[in-house]
Amino acid sequence: MQTLTVALEGRSYPIHIGPGLLARPDLIVGRLRQKKVALVTNSTVGPLYAAALRRALEEHGVTVMEIALPDGEQYKSWETLNGIFDALLENRSERGTTVIALGGGVVGDLAGFAAAVYQRGVPFIQVPTTLLAQVDSAVGGKTAVNHPLGKNMIGAFYQPVAVVADTDTLATLPRRELAAGIAEVVKYGIIQDAGFFDWLDANMDRLLNREAEALTYAIERSCAIKAAIVARDERETGDRALLNYGHTFGHAIETALGYGEWLHGEAVAAGMVLAARLSRQLDLIGAPEVKRITELLARAGLPTAAPDLGVERYLELMGHDKKVQGGRMRFILVKRLGEAFISAEVPRAALDAVLAHA
Amino acid sequence: MQTLTVALEGRSYPIHIGPGLLARPDLIVGRLRQKKVALVTNSTVGPLYAAALRRALEEHGVTVMEIALPDGEQYKSWETLNGIFDALLENRSERGTTVIALGGGVVGDLAGFAAAVYQRGVPFIQVPTTLLAQVDSAVGGKTAVNHPLGKNMIGAFYQPVAVVADTDTLATLPRRELAAGIAEVVKYGIIQDAGFFDWLDANMDRLLNREAEALTYAIERSCAIKAAIVARDERETGDRALLNYGHTFGHAIETALGYGEWLHGEAVAAGMVLAARLSRQLDLIGAPEVKRITELLARAGLPTAAPDLGVERYLELMGHDKKVQGGRMRFILVKRLGEAFISAEVPRAALDAVLAHA
Repeated sequence: MQTLTVALEGRSYPIHIGPGLLARPDLIVGRLRQKKVALVTNSTVGPLYAAALRRALEEHGVTVMEIALPDGEQYKSWETLNGIFDALLENRSERGTTVIALGGGVVGDLAGFAAAVYQRGVPFIQVPTTLLAQVDSAVGGKTAVNHPLGKNMIGAFYQPVAVVADTDTLATLPRRELAAGIAEVVKYGIIQDAGFFDWLDANMDRLLNREAEALTYAIERSCAIKAAIVARDERETGDRALLNYGHTFGHAIETALGYGEWLHGEAVAAGMVLAARLSRQLDLIGAPEVKRITELLARAGLPTAAPDLGVERYLELMGHDKKVQGGRMRFILVKRLGEAFISAEVPRAALDAVLAHA
Repeated sequence: MQTLTVALEGRSYPIHIGPGLLARPDLIVGRLRQKKVALVTNSTVGPLYAAALRRALEEHGVTVMEIALPDGEQYKSWETLNGIFDALLENRSERGTTVIALGGGVVGDLAGFAAAVYQRGVPFIQVPTTLLAQVDSAVGGKTAVNHPLGKNMIGAFYQPVAVVADTDTLATLPRRELAAGIAEVVKYGIIQDAGFFDWLDANMDRLLNREAEALTYAIERSCAIKAAIVARDERETGDRALLNYGHTFGHAIETALGYGEWLHGEAVAAGMVLAARLSRQLDLIGAPEVKRITELLARAGLPTAAPDLGVERYLELMGHDKKVQGGRMRFILVKRLGEAFISAEVPRAALDAVLAHA
């Protein structure tokens, strides 16, 4: 087991990464304020892992109430969130009762937001079971639900008290979801670490074959990069926006196609290719870099061609992006592999050129 | 104009109190991150004051979008909150757009919670127009909506960047709402300041006659007591719970009768009498203190007899209270006028005796 720390004054927390961690209830029990938890999971992950975790916690004298959500991004809604509140209230969940999210990004975002606002905030632990959640969504405290007009529009910055990532759970992950997680892993290479990008290039087959050592390294490296960025800019007033590379386009794709049609990681993959092309259009990078990014994502089985929504529709959807400031869209661009930056100076013509071929 | 400060490291903010402040847009404009605001008000307050505030802001070059909510505690709901999000998104409200709450406690709680979670948090200013909001709900950062199973169950601790309390707005306040605000003012005397309680006893008629000097003093004193408590316990891990004196009973009354049937301050008044009787039952105070509290509230025209819901129903409703810890109810009791404390040691028999006569 590897343990990283997200360093936030007074609210620092550990990220544990390794095999067999669902059988390590001590990692959770030591963080509880009272021996009572609400275990939030979904209809896919629950049958696979909830019973084991529940039993392990109960053996430590913890009372466990289970809340199972339907599976899919289309359920990351207000209505599902309200169902969590109903269950918490009916079970008389208190301010000291810890909410545990067992599942992927949707479960983590929903359960985390519920924990952030139930009784104005209760403790929260992330137990991510997808690659995407282990490398990205379970770390850093972003929680949210979607709104019909925009992805992740309603939410909170709310940090967990611990993250427990059991890499064994990746064995049951559908291939498509594995690839979606790899999209976010590739993102870290593109924005921050050219050496890691090279490593991914060399080891993509091992990741796709789910070799434990390769997966664990990719997760650790991803979490380390994210933890460092979050520690210096928790509330995204600056650098943290770099983590949104490809996401402005990606969110537009998700909203346009309907939540759940493309997986989040798939939309982000296509969005990262668009962002690379936009960087090329602005002469920041060359054609070879665009090609390397596109090909690495394609090798993972990810879509690299964005749906053709038309330029106007893309611009309309992106106008709702949380990074819009003073009516200006801001984009994350790359100046070379391993170095991204934020720009509010993207001319409309460059956008048109890139989106016209989407 | 008097200005107090809520001292919270890095997030301190001013409370301005005085006449004519709606004509002082500088108090607001100086706090804006961008010259764009969402002005949230309701169907009663809006027609009285929104146009003037809007014009004053627009003269300073501020773009104002207005969001009018229905008036009443029964609308402090999930559904109303969602309507605010729809309006913010349709108007392309950004992360730098400030939400301004112009109205009473319901508007402030709803708009504040919307600001806390829209795009994971946008700036927020309170412009309270009821006595209750000026002395209590607009100060301290508690925001929430109600749930059918419990009052204020979903919410956030989210501090405004400024509070602007124009005492002129109290001129149009219905008598019943004035009294509801006085209930919270009396609370500060009971829990913390016997001298202030004496002052209220001597000056109740002046408050009911809306004498500006008396109202301003009562608001300042109330805000000063609250600001000091919030500064030392923002998230209610200790002392802040004292501010809930009378509220455990009061919330039960509001939930049982249906939100909006009794005004919040009315339910709190009846709840404070119950809490005083409970303190008497436990031999903490004498009959004369109970009598003084009851009579002062009665003089304000407030209900001092709680509805007869039956002991079992009270206990059931109070079991959802946010102060419940480890299944134990906690109560705010008084040991003498001006000194309250938190107790988890209230025997069932004492509760029965008090509630049987409710």
